[in-house]
Amino acid sequence: MSSIVGMSWDKLMVRMACYGQRRHKTSLPKYRPLQCAAKLSVAGGTDAMQDTCKRRYFFNPAFEIYGGVGGLYDYGPVMTAININALNLWRSHFVLEESMLEIATTCLTPEDVFISSGHVQRFNDVMTKDIETGECFRLDTYLAQYCARRLNDPHEEMDAETRSALRDVEQRVAIMGEEEMAATVTRFGIRSPKGNALQPPFRFNLMFQTQIGPEGQQKGYLRPELAQGIFMNFKKMYDFNGGRMPFAGAAVGSAFRNEIAPRGGLVRLREFQLAEIEHFMNPNDKDHPKFGDVRDLEVPLWPREQQEATEDPILLTLGEAVDIGMVDNPTLAYFMGRVYLYLKALGAVHVRFRQHRSNEMAHYATDCWDAELLCSGGWLECVGIADRSCYDLEVHSARTGKDMTAFETYAEPQEERTVERKCNKAAIGKAFKGDAQRVLHHLQHELSAAECQTMQQVLDTGMAVQATVDGGLEVDITPEMVRFEQVTKKVTGRAFTPSVIEPSFGIGRILWCVLEQVYYIRESSLAALGDKSQPSKDKRAVFALPAAIAAYKVMVCPLMVKDNIMPHVRQIAAAFARHGIAYKVDDTGVPIGKRYARTDELGVPFCVTVDPTTDEDGTVTIRERDSCEQVRVPKAEVVPCIQTLCAEARQWQDLKAQYPLHEAAAVQAVGIQR
Amino acid sequence: MSSIVGMSWDKLMVRMACYGQRRHKTSLPKYRPLQCAAKLSVAGGTDAMQDTCKRRYFFNPAFEIYGGVGGLYDYGPVMTAININALNLWRSHFVLEESMLEIATTCLTPEDVFISSGHVQRFNDVMTKDIETGECFRLDTYLAQYCARRLNDPHEEMDAETRSALRDVEQRVAIMGEEEMAATVTRFGIRSPKGNALQPPFRFNLMFQTQIGPEGQQKGYLRPELAQGIFMNFKKMYDFNGGRMPFAGAAVGSAFRNEIAPRGGLVRLREFQLAEIEHFMNPNDKDHPKFGDVRDLEVPLWPREQQEATEDPILLTLGEAVDIGMVDNPTLAYFMGRVYLYLKALGAVHVRFRQHRSNEMAHYATDCWDAELLCSGGWLECVGIADRSCYDLEVHSARTGKDMTAFETYAEPQEERTVERKCNKAAIGKAFKGDAQRVLHHLQHELSAAECQTMQQVLDTGMAVQATVDGGLEVDITPEMVRFEQVTKKVTGRAFTPSVIEPSFGIGRILWCVLEQVYYIRESSLAALGDKSQPSKDKRAVFALPAAIAAYKVMVCPLMVKDNIMPHVRQIAAAFARHGIAYKVDDTGVPIGKRYARTDELGVPFCVTVDPTTDEDGTVTIRERDSCEQVRVPKAEVVPCIQTLCAEARQWQDLKAQYPLHEAAAVQAVGIQR
Repeated sequence: MSSIVGMSWDKLMVRMACYGQRRHKTSLPKYRPLQCAAKLSVAGGTDAMQDTCKRRYFFNPAFEIYGGVGGLYDYGPVMTAININALNLWRSHFVLEESMLEIATTCLTPEDVFISSGHVQRFNDVMTKDIETGECFRLDTYLAQYCARRLNDPHEEMDAETRSALRDVEQRVAIMGEEEMAATVTRFGIRSPKGNALQPPFRFNLMFQTQIGPEGQQKGYLRPELAQGIFMNFKKMYDFNGGRMPFAGAAVGSAFRNEIAPRGGLVRLREFQLAEIEHFMNPNDKDHPKFGDVRDLEVPLWPREQQEATEDPILLTLGEAVDIGMVDNPTLAYFMGRVYLYLKALGAVHVRFRQHRSNEMAHYATDCWDAELLCSGGWLECVGIADRSCYDLEVHSARTGKDMTAFETYAEPQEERTVERKCNKAAIGKAFKGDAQRVLHHLQHELSAAECQTMQQVLDTGMAVQATVDGGLEVDITPEMVRFEQVTKKVTGRAFTPSVIEPSFGIGRILWCVLEQVYYIRESSLAALGDKSQPSKDKRAVFALPAAIAAYKVMVCPLMVKDNIMPHVRQIAAAFARHGIAYKVDDTGVPIGKRYARTDELGVPFCVTVDPTTDEDGTVTIRERDSCEQVRVPKAEVVPCIQTLCAEARQWQDLKAQYPLHEAAAVQAVGIQR
Repeated sequence: MSSIVGMSWDKLMVRMACYGQRRHKTSLPKYRPLQCAAKLSVAGGTDAMQDTCKRRYFFNPAFEIYGGVGGLYDYGPVMTAININALNLWRSHFVLEESMLEIATTCLTPEDVFISSGHVQRFNDVMTKDIETGECFRLDTYLAQYCARRLNDPHEEMDAETRSALRDVEQRVAIMGEEEMAATVTRFGIRSPKGNALQPPFRFNLMFQTQIGPEGQQKGYLRPELAQGIFMNFKKMYDFNGGRMPFAGAAVGSAFRNEIAPRGGLVRLREFQLAEIEHFMNPNDKDHPKFGDVRDLEVPLWPREQQEATEDPILLTLGEAVDIGMVDNPTLAYFMGRVYLYLKALGAVHVRFRQHRSNEMAHYATDCWDAELLCSGGWLECVGIADRSCYDLEVHSARTGKDMTAFETYAEPQEERTVERKCNKAAIGKAFKGDAQRVLHHLQHELSAAECQTMQQVLDTGMAVQATVDGGLEVDITPEMVRFEQVTKKVTGRAFTPSVIEPSFGIGRILWCVLEQVYYIRESSLAALGDKSQPSKDKRAVFALPAAIAAYKVMVCPLMVKDNIMPHVRQIAAAFARHGIAYKVDDTGVPIGKRYARTDELGVPFCVTVDPTTDEDGTVTIRERDSCEQVRVPKAEVVPCIQTLCAEARQWQDLKAQYPLHEAAAVQAVGIQR
């Protein structure tokens, strides 16, 4: 069994048996373990990438001129366009492809909704304060840092017991309650960074609260997720969909969490954009008609058993993962596959799926996988894909009394035995007068089917039956008062509360990770010319973004600002505008090599350059970002060339085969030409 | 002068003189008055249109299962798609066309920003409460309703003085302060709808307030507009734009106003979507290079003088309006023209521009025009286009001390006379010891250029000059201590605070009005067949939305669900998905005529129907929504046909000329075929 690496045979047999029970499969796929780096090593260091972003105004702290507000960022023009493109891709990849019902719901939400969903009671972090300064900390993070610091301190000598206790805290802090955290603080005598005592831990709700309306009586919150807004609309969507199941609702919008410790970059913000899908289905049928499309897709999975055994993630096809019951059902796996393809289309390189461990999942969740992307801070949860069962619709239905069910029509009508209760109201009224209603209610609603049957057997003998009506009233029921008949009815279907699969996308986080993953630094001009002894002064950053999400698809550059060149530039720019291709013109007096470098920094995949030759023979050059190669193309063919390249209907290789290579390109590529 | 209707010759001469001063034009354009309806008469009544919207789930009250929250609405799938399409059109019409810098800023805003902008002090409504029930009213609305009710009551007899007083209140209530409103309540003895006394009026701030961060010390608001977020980023955008002026920032997003009296429909909501542009320019140069593109566009204008004279709006070209100084400057007029074209592209039929009267405008605004759309409630402000001067950037700069200027390079360097102040620190230090710094400061910064010149004249004689330093210290300045030299410097430019033109779009309001304006009810089937005596039972609603914003461009219908039909349907649907054309399939068993009617209700411009003929000769029918005509088209040509029709590259007439008319269409069109 050499192919099964990193897992003992015994464990495998146990798991196989366990999975076997669920799916009745016995053949076990080969486990293909996958080494994952713990952190992304960003070219030139994380700071280099962040510097490029800051310098080129991808994003910056909001309200910076007022000193900024933690956890709030603005997007500049490049990031705004990337964000819009990522959402458009999301819409075509998910909404259009699956005929989902995209709706738009509000950020402001009345308190009642979040009481039902459990957010008012449970959406909180454990916090503590420095008793002197009042500074606040998220206690789980603070404890984790404390443990890591002591465990990694080479100067600290500690006994085995303390070391083991610290390790235990580090591993379990994410699931500790506030009492246990308080005990930990006491046990280790933990103090604030300033050396002061800490206040007893308390829970802080992460939702922003406000008042709706002038009376100030309606408490409201800003939504911390989009899901509840979609659940509110379940019945409307179900009707709009003609009562057909399954179907999915989708929404895109802002969400808000009053984070105690917002992180730098776009990783943990107080206001951020989510895109969420709620796929409603029959809990008895979690197959998906299109699962076949992704069945053979091989993806990196980190199931909970591997995590618990501190073993590496593995490569499996989604079909294998479903067959052995590792992923709970085909619909969940289908969405994992679609999410994987979406992330790849955005340009993500390092993606894996981590299964939630049992103690991480909400009690109602059946199975949950996070799509994680590698970034400089480690593996980051970017998309959560959860089977939330029927929980949400049920709690809202319970609290509002509103019907939140769908109706399933049986393939064939089914027979159902039931009791018909024929009461003689006149006889009952005459016998019981003012108590008649209570007696009637008892006969019609309180008696079980079995009790009816028993009573009828007695009545059939002609005798009366003594019955105790609700409230303790004892009455005699005579045969003339009631007749219970056993009947068989044809039933065509049943109402059920749908089960929900929820893929939830943190768009900002995804884009942050993609930016880190596609960032690289081009060999400097000198190094590229062979003189590697020279230090490369001229670090040129490139974002290798796919054309689909790049802010601008093409930069239009006049080689120089001259009268025989600028009319061509304006003409080409107008043609791009007319065809809806996002372009930018760089007609600054900066040398062309530098302008190419600045274009690369924005992730623009192509440059079109107008030079004196354009005026002579009507050709321009097209430059490809990553190879720095250029071809000469007739002006009239520029728009279709860029269009097909961006749509990936044509590759750069095809263009090179069709058009002559531009000679100066090799030199310009490394930025020598000034 | 018969062409000048509705305005006296005297008034015209006065205005001409007044405008002449501003623009030095003497020829007056012909005034072309325009009768505007006061309210839109919606086909079948407003309720019919709202019923259709509700029935087809265009939008519905948010949190309806919890009883709803006033002023919060959710968009269903159709409206969500229309909204996205309207924003995409906005982006290509404005952002792409003008190379604007679109950015994305946060809803959460710290208090300081809105103190600077004046929102904390001034963004409020006057309110009152029923003293018994605590029910709240917006007092201006309540007073207006009170006046209208009494003035229109045929049973009430009132003297001329009271009538005139009520009329006066009705007209001026929008600009009354709370004292005057209180006096009005007292004068007329106005009580609550329940007949109780009213509390004294008070101001209620319309911004939603919250706390940012766990310490609860940072007060924050949800933005009531996007403008401030754009102003925060001015300097970043200016740098990103390479320091070039003019340029525009743009943003799209949610805004929030805690309205006291939210209205039904989408007219006045508590959470709504805005799209805003801030065009930054040199206050000395408000020309626009592309003004020529809209100069000859004739638009309905309602200038303030016409309003004050209770005269009709007029038709003028934007060129005429600028030439006579009616619209303040070409950039403002350019944006009015672009806004007009955008609204027309969305399908708006009734549009006019109303100029703000002097008492409506903010003190800093130079000129302001609202694009109004006609709806069942009257003319509704949907886009505000204001020249806000330099106000916003100046207040933020004043409060933060941050530079918010742009730099203007003069065409030619200009000479500027200035004084160079050469101080001998050693001599000053020796003479004044501890006071030396104060003396130095006086010489270098406190003396004006003229004072320096006078002082130098005395010093040139060799005498000392007595000077009074800040704080009252008297000192003698000797010739050896200082020398003031008059120098002439070449100055290449100057820093200035840009002026701002702000077009601000209420997207929800625009769409609401467009829906009302394009809604119509088709002649019933019977009436269309000539039997007009029959009442039309079968009212068929149509939204004549342009393809550009319709939620679905095409509905794909199998004539019947059969094995020789469904494969074609799936194939055509897949082709639409592949080409990114939003489509929907209606394969319910409902008769085709009914399905067409349902499609019309959603505003879908085209239907493709697969029938048994498709399987025989490979053709399908394409149906056009408004004419109900159908042509037969080969299946392979369906996608390009729909594509070019939607892009308006081809008209329906062209298709009719090219392809045979479908015979059954005339009957199906009116829904007879069952």
